[in-house]
Amino acid sequence: MRFQPYRSPSTGREVRAVLFDTFGTVVDWRTGVARQAADFAAERGQELDAEAFADEWRALYQPAMEAIRTGTREFATLDTLHRENLDQVLRRHGFDPERLGAETLEELNKSWHRLPPWPDSVEGLAAIRRRYIVGPLSNGNTCLLLGMARSAGLPWDVIIGSDMTRTYKPLPQAYLRTAEFLDLNPGEVMLAAAHNSDLHAARKAGLATAFIARPTEYGPGQTADLAPESDWDLAASSIPELAARLGA
Amino acid sequence: MRFQPYRSPSTGREVRAVLFDTFGTVVDWRTGVARQAADFAAERGQELDAEAFADEWRALYQPAMEAIRTGTREFATLDTLHRENLDQVLRRHGFDPERLGAETLEELNKSWHRLPPWPDSVEGLAAIRRRYIVGPLSNGNTCLLLGMARSAGLPWDVIIGSDMTRTYKPLPQAYLRTAEFLDLNPGEVMLAAAHNSDLHAARKAGLATAFIARPTEYGPGQTADLAPESDWDLAASSIPELAARLGA
Repeated sequence: MRFQPYRSPSTGREVRAVLFDTFGTVVDWRTGVARQAADFAAERGQELDAEAFADEWRALYQPAMEAIRTGTREFATLDTLHRENLDQVLRRHGFDPERLGAETLEELNKSWHRLPPWPDSVEGLAAIRRRYIVGPLSNGNTCLLLGMARSAGLPWDVIIGSDMTRTYKPLPQAYLRTAEFLDLNPGEVMLAAAHNSDLHAARKAGLATAFIARPTEYGPGQTADLAPESDWDLAASSIPELAARLGA
Repeated sequence: MRFQPYRSPSTGREVRAVLFDTFGTVVDWRTGVARQAADFAAERGQELDAEAFADEWRALYQPAMEAIRTGTREFATLDTLHRENLDQVLRRHGFDPERLGAETLEELNKSWHRLPPWPDSVEGLAAIRRRYIVGPLSNGNTCLLLGMARSAGLPWDVIIGSDMTRTYKPLPQAYLRTAEFLDLNPGEVMLAAAHNSDLHAARKAGLATAFIARPTEYGPGQTADLAPESDWDLAASSIPELAARLGA
């Protein structure tokens, strides 16, 4: 019997590609960055609140992209933005970036290339891949997402980085240009994400949507994005559960 | 013991990514297109010299890209160029494209997404991937290369289509922009190809080079590209042999 792809009620189309937000949805950036920052501090014999370090580094991510989204700054990759923000976070935690050396800073910046997957991610992506195209739809640049995929063993079919679309979510072009590279109608592309705001923007751009709950992305005290906040096409508490709902 | 990547004598750098020309180097386009064209003709009860059909369709590929390379035409994807050329080839072989319907033509055009790998390709790529980034460096667009990868089981880490670099080999930007997406120095990227002309252009752009002999790409009477015609960094008669020379 021929496989029947999932048909999105909201787009009215059969889904061909399931694309994933990565930071928080597929990989646990907080644990990953904190662990690498802790190692970095330990090697230098310094104390560090590594979770706070990770949270603060992450918090600088949206304002940095915003300058590019609004057009006040030319496109720069997420690696570049992370690198700029790193100096600021290091200073707050008692490190002088001027004294650390370019190579050390570059290496620490690549923490974002080496993030652990959530325990269910690899298995879930592999299941979905049997029936659908799978890839990231992330604000990460290609090289970052490639490093992440190799390090975490994420079985993507294709990586379309934000340096290929040259824009950042939640701008509509981030979703639309990705669909265009796949030669798909936006309604044939599903975004799976742990963030309701990302799904709102994807739906507005015409994509199918799936919520995946990641209630500890921001640590044990997380208050936002604990549950779907709209009637997304699908909602699941893990990627294998999403695979099952997609019939994959 | 830590793995020592291959150091290219010509670029003086350790190779991090091994990127492959696809049509002819990784997949057997002639057999693949001929088989699908033969099926197409048989379903319509018509005779067809399927190898000639494949050769003629392929021969129209370079002139079509040339208009884009010289700037007389805006960038168009290889899928688009194949589709335009298909009408011409069909007419020469006694088919009227006007009477075939858009969907049928689209489906036949996707023959290029469904090409068989050479028998050693999948095993060879998987071996190299253990130690290096592997991907295509092809004039194919992302969607075409993705379809090819899924159909042939090619284990790419990343697919950077010509619609991402928005140019065609052998223009230097095709090689350089690909290296840039990977955040690598061109000398850390190796092009592996069955065509000496492709390797000449890659070397000129600063890439490392490897020749892979595919002496039947153009059928049993092939006369060109039977052997390496310059002192490429490496030369091999199969992708697993290249893997061995790379220490992978």
